[in-house]
Amino acid sequence: MRPHNFSAGPAGLPEAVLTRAREELLDFRGSGASVMEISHRGPVFMRLAEEIEVRLRRLMQVPDDYAVLFFQGGATLQFSALVWNLLGDRAGGDYLVTGLWSDKAQRIASSLCDARIAATSADAAGAYARVPQPAEFDLDPNAAWLHYCPNETVHGIEFPYVPASGAVPLIADYSSSILSRPIDVSQYGMLYAGAQKNLGPAGITLVIVRRDLIREPASGTPPVLSYLGQAGRESMLNTPPTFAWYLLGLVLEWVEEQGGTDAMAARNDSKSGALYRAIDASNYYSNAVDTDCRSRVNVTFDLADPAETATFVAEAQAARLLALKGHSAVGGLRASLYNAVSQQAVDDLVSFMAEFERTRG
Amino acid sequence: MRPHNFSAGPAGLPEAVLTRAREELLDFRGSGASVMEISHRGPVFMRLAEEIEVRLRRLMQVPDDYAVLFFQGGATLQFSALVWNLLGDRAGGDYLVTGLWSDKAQRIASSLCDARIAATSADAAGAYARVPQPAEFDLDPNAAWLHYCPNETVHGIEFPYVPASGAVPLIADYSSSILSRPIDVSQYGMLYAGAQKNLGPAGITLVIVRRDLIREPASGTPPVLSYLGQAGRESMLNTPPTFAWYLLGLVLEWVEEQGGTDAMAARNDSKSGALYRAIDASNYYSNAVDTDCRSRVNVTFDLADPAETATFVAEAQAARLLALKGHSAVGGLRASLYNAVSQQAVDDLVSFMAEFERTRG
Repeated sequence: MRPHNFSAGPAGLPEAVLTRAREELLDFRGSGASVMEISHRGPVFMRLAEEIEVRLRRLMQVPDDYAVLFFQGGATLQFSALVWNLLGDRAGGDYLVTGLWSDKAQRIASSLCDARIAATSADAAGAYARVPQPAEFDLDPNAAWLHYCPNETVHGIEFPYVPASGAVPLIADYSSSILSRPIDVSQYGMLYAGAQKNLGPAGITLVIVRRDLIREPASGTPPVLSYLGQAGRESMLNTPPTFAWYLLGLVLEWVEEQGGTDAMAARNDSKSGALYRAIDASNYYSNAVDTDCRSRVNVTFDLADPAETATFVAEAQAARLLALKGHSAVGGLRASLYNAVSQQAVDDLVSFMAEFERTRG
Repeated sequence: MRPHNFSAGPAGLPEAVLTRAREELLDFRGSGASVMEISHRGPVFMRLAEEIEVRLRRLMQVPDDYAVLFFQGGATLQFSALVWNLLGDRAGGDYLVTGLWSDKAQRIASSLCDARIAATSADAAGAYARVPQPAEFDLDPNAAWLHYCPNETVHGIEFPYVPASGAVPLIADYSSSILSRPIDVSQYGMLYAGAQKNLGPAGITLVIVRRDLIREPASGTPPVLSYLGQAGRESMLNTPPTFAWYLLGLVLEWVEEQGGTDAMAARNDSKSGALYRAIDASNYYSNAVDTDCRSRVNVTFDLADPAETATFVAEAQAARLLALKGHSAVGGLRASLYNAVSQQAVDDLVSFMAEFERTRG
């Protein structure tokens, strides 16, 4: 068995997906070539892309009036692209700032439009440990969107509710929690996700956008970042990252085989529940996030003695528990429990933590 | 043996590269994870990225005063990014238009700056069969750059010389001919290439840019498309397409093992020479490109009876000669002879062509 991989992203993939990719790496569906060696516009890849869209729509119950698009550049490039595509004649959009990623989205948008902070949960020291309550929102009814990040990967903070934005389209960066549980797509004007956590490898980005919001983008928008342009060309305005797209398809297939997003939610509740219980039961480990908005996919925690953090990471790795180091912006430890991480992985981590506490605590 | 793959891109990769990737797909260098499952900022991937840069610099003899950067989005996204990054206080750049790709580069730049056509080789009907001579250039000494495409993939046209641009930085879209022969990088202000032809799989784009040209990009430039930003962060301002990057490294290793760009040039001359000789010796096959600027990587050709084109493609595929259909913009046939295509592949194609002519011609 391979070691347990708690990487925040690029994250571990289901072993079944990698095994399948390995099997067909030199000959995809009898084409005589690898899936990465065939034309994206040829019949073999076009059929694959179609199958993937059908599967994604089924898994996420995407309504027909939403387009499913793929891009390169990660969610970070969408921070700009969404402004070019969705601003129209509005002056700007509203942002809920709850951690590193929503902060970055707001900052990057600020260079292109009036990106108002409608609410922030940063404390006086700039740290994040909660999400704002709706009563704290200062929403602009003329905003082109309300943007938020349902799960902050770095801080381990997850919205326990979907913000109400009234008539203003709601936009969500779902990079770290997409497919981790059911999402009611109809509540969103647009949602997007870099693939490298719960969808596949790095290098492909999913955008789901309500069709009535798709319009001619701002002048000067690179054509390959135009929602209108890509929607009219099956996301193939230029050569797409075909192998990443294919792997994303294999991940969707695996999620479906496992029982879909309901099954994923049950597993993720169980995994994160077990880890938070272990943290809370201990005086050695701690998690600073308000209990009602603790992330069920990225569990951050600290040691009573922070000087032991590097030792913890190294000994965990030796015990085949990989990538537990926290993000450099916040330090500490982090276990990312994406769909590909098993209950067994969490159980082994909890056992390791108990033993580490016994010997070092 | 796998069939011969003449795809224009995503193109065939060396079988040795795919075999190697398959071997280490589930465990990269003893990390216990696939190379696509580890943090780009972790020691294993950082070391790989460094090795790849060293190898690329050696293979292409990249001078020290040039930065080697990687992006997502393909060469098409660089059509915009280069304007944002390199325009500075100039009004625009000059373009040599010699086919579909240089035309597209000029059109996209036009939405962002004054993109002057300094020369075009389009005939009255808009077709391309040659490159312009230097005497035809109408260069602006104040242009921020002179942009050209050394090899037009769709039309099968290759510059037999490097345009002289004086003090104006020369920019080249080398997507289809990079590594096909030695390039004197010092003649360029910047050169770039989508990987999916001669460098690796789709999803990663190489930019080599002279460091003194790297400056603060235009306001509103997405940070991940900033040359300055990416140069300061090892091309990892956000999560890069790690698996594509890794495969690109394997391709570089393979090219080096084969003898480097000199060996590639000799092979490509031999392969393209054999195919053009077969075309020229026949009354059934024809190539319309001026002989001095025929591409040595993308060989376009037509049948005396164009109605037989689809039959040719289908019968070739049945004979294990894949992807010979010409680009939809020009029709006809095209054999792309990138580095991974063997002399044997060309010999088999020439034999097939002779037999097809004998039975159908």
